Amino acid sequence: MNLSETVLLPKGFQFSSATAGIKASGKPDLGLILAGTSSRGAALFTKNRIVAAPVEVGRSFLARSAGKLRAVVVNSGNANCATGAQGVRDCKEVCAEMARLLKVQASQILPSSTGIIGVPLPTEKITSNLNKLLASAGASIEHVKAFANAIITTDTRPKVASKALKSGAVITGIAKGSGMIHPQLATMLVYLVTDVAATIVELRAVLKEACDESFNVISVDGDTSTNDTVLLLASGDSKLPLRKVRKEFRSALSDVCRSLAEQIVRDGEGVQHVIRLQISEARSRAEALQIARAISSSLLVKTAWAGADPNWGRILAAAGRSGVAIDPKKVSVTIGDQIVCKGSVACVFDEKKAHEHLAQTESTVGIRLGRGKLTLDFLTADLTAEYVHINADYST
Amino acid sequence: MNLSETVLLPKGFQFSSATAGIKASGKPDLGLILAGTSSRGAALFTKNRIVAAPVEVGRSFLARSAGKLRAVVVNSGNANCATGAQGVRDCKEVCAEMARLLKVQASQILPSSTGIIGVPLPTEKITSNLNKLLASAGASIEHVKAFANAIITTDTRPKVASKALKSGAVITGIAKGSGMIHPQLATMLVYLVTDVAATIVELRAVLKEACDESFNVISVDGDTSTNDTVLLLASGDSKLPLRKVRKEFRSALSDVCRSLAEQIVRDGEGVQHVIRLQISEARSRAEALQIARAISSSLLVKTAWAGADPNWGRILAAAGRSGVAIDPKKVSVTIGDQIVCKGSVACVFDEKKAHEHLAQTESTVGIRLGRGKLTLDFLTADLTAEYVHINADYST
Repeated sequence: MNLSETVLLPKGFQFSSATAGIKASGKPDLGLILAGTSSRGAALFTKNRIVAAPVEVGRSFLARSAGKLRAVVVNSGNANCATGAQGVRDCKEVCAEMARLLKVQASQILPSSTGIIGVPLPTEKITSNLNKLLASAGASIEHVKAFANAIITTDTRPKVASKALKSGAVITGIAKGSGMIHPQLATMLVYLVTDVAATIVELRAVLKEACDESFNVISVDGDTSTNDTVLLLASGDSKLPLRKVRKEFRSALSDVCRSLAEQIVRDGEGVQHVIRLQISEARSRAEALQIARAISSSLLVKTAWAGADPNWGRILAAAGRSGVAIDPKKVSVTIGDQIVCKGSVACVFDEKKAHEHLAQTESTVGIRLGRGKLTLDFLTADLTAEYVHINADYST
Repeated sequence: MNLSETVLLPKGFQFSSATAGIKASGKPDLGLILAGTSSRGAALFTKNRIVAAPVEVGRSFLARSAGKLRAVVVNSGNANCATGAQGVRDCKEVCAEMARLLKVQASQILPSSTGIIGVPLPTEKITSNLNKLLASAGASIEHVKAFANAIITTDTRPKVASKALKSGAVITGIAKGSGMIHPQLATMLVYLVTDVAATIVELRAVLKEACDESFNVISVDGDTSTNDTVLLLASGDSKLPLRKVRKEFRSALSDVCRSLAEQIVRDGEGVQHVIRLQISEARSRAEALQIARAISSSLLVKTAWAGADPNWGRILAAAGRSGVAIDPKKVSVTIGDQIVCKGSVACVFDEKKAHEHLAQTESTVGIRLGRGKLTLDFLTADLTAEYVHINADYST
């Protein structure tokens, strides 16, 4: 089931995009989601101590408006991060102008920014394009795709996933993210829109659970962004109360989030191989995550994966320095369906077959800890010379 | 003062090297240090939970012999790690054979191995060459250099540093290390030999302090090795008691360790730029280290350094996700002598000059936290496409 193939339209939302000249490339860099008066939103933000102005403003606006969001204004090409008090003023000015046009409170606008850090937001370029953005808003699949395209940066493709509930209500998610992907709460920019009817308390609960199963178990490059935002916005226009379909909704939301998370890893900067890390027999989710993050952040492991090298010694060494008190005698490693190391000792295995498994676009590496019963799937990727080229070019 | 230029010979030691055929390249891969009956040694080992057989055996032998070491036997080309009970038996067999030849206890031999993980130690190749190794031992500078050369792996050059005390006693250190460098206690293989007279309690104390100022404040690639060992061996042959020159010895030992640590970073895999991170105004050494390690492990920061890109936003974002509760308003970043960001807000600075500073072989990046009084210098390096090529080639 590929959730990204068919885009579904939840009732009660309009989408729009524009080119404001923030990106030097001249590509679309402004996006808008409009929601009706009965909409309610909940969001999760980055855990980085250095947060961008839109995260600071968005957090406070969401609280002040009690989640009664009417619009999301996103710009790409500039993160409005490390821009100080001026950055906050710039962000609020964008929200105020959109609020004036929509005749709502500024706190009913959620701002997002993604792009370069430390450069003042070109506020005038944004505010002068809000009218055009509003005028071209619509509720077609093309509008959703254009929005998804306007919010990307180093991504090579837009990321959308949809799922319908039996009742006909719909969840559609739009995400962007390619580098600085190692979320500790949420990842880059993710907008989830649905036409179920829900309170913000209900939305917060399902969003937290869905994120734990998706954006919180992926890593591209070990860096947590300063702008990470995941928003769940419910219009209520399907008249279907979330509480009546909680289990189905929860599961569908997770599916949409997992699809978006996988799209983000597959489109990670320079990524050639996606690796599904299966941590098993852990004592807790926390320690499984700790080990998965140590392995997925190890340069030696990630470069071995780039070469489809079944070098399990590096995986073992990374697990060993994770800080979890693993007992080497109980640790096993599998590559595909072969056990390559048991009790931290080399096994006889078919190296050519293991190499071929890792040479695929997506492969599976398992680490059994022999400590408990918890299993965690974590999606990560290799580190290629292409990643270095993308990020080493003198660009400031 | 370049401690690596002149190799000094502490009294009471002999060195040797041989080619046992462990390395496929046919280069020297066996090294020996011989010490007299009055020698005392103390060592620090890796904090990785996955430890190699020689670390396990060495730790127990050092305790059993109360530090009365008579020889150090090192092989390169094979780490004897993840080799299970057989690896421990192999390691003990090497020690037993050397002990037999020297007519000492096996526990008076310290074993070391470095190289590939998960491949059984070719024990016979080693034991059959111990006689030759012994026969060719000597106390010349050439012997020291040959030993240093026999213990390297991906290093491009051997690493030696010496310092004389006023009294004429000498400290000479020999190290190897290039990848998997992110020590949490000690780094790769480091042998420090001196002719002062000391108890193991005295040796342990000065070694711990010297390591904290050298090998514990460097990182090449964020991975802590399974074989890290730092040994300090005192022959006593200068008749100078350590306790009479403690301060001078302590300072000279730190100098030798720092020189070796810097040589390791400069010879890091694929390294083109060495960066001296100066963390200041931290509350404690622990939090300064936490921030230095987060920054020096960030792929985005390290790749920016590869391009000599003064992208301070990535440095700030890495500090923000380090887990230390920094206050963004108090954080400043400097590149060379320019403040590029103050209170987490961009400053006007000369970007060309900052780029030129970072384009040098060695440059300085400062992070002021505004939290306390502690300052920490941490040596790290860039991440280049060359690193990926070295580590991605399918080699298993």
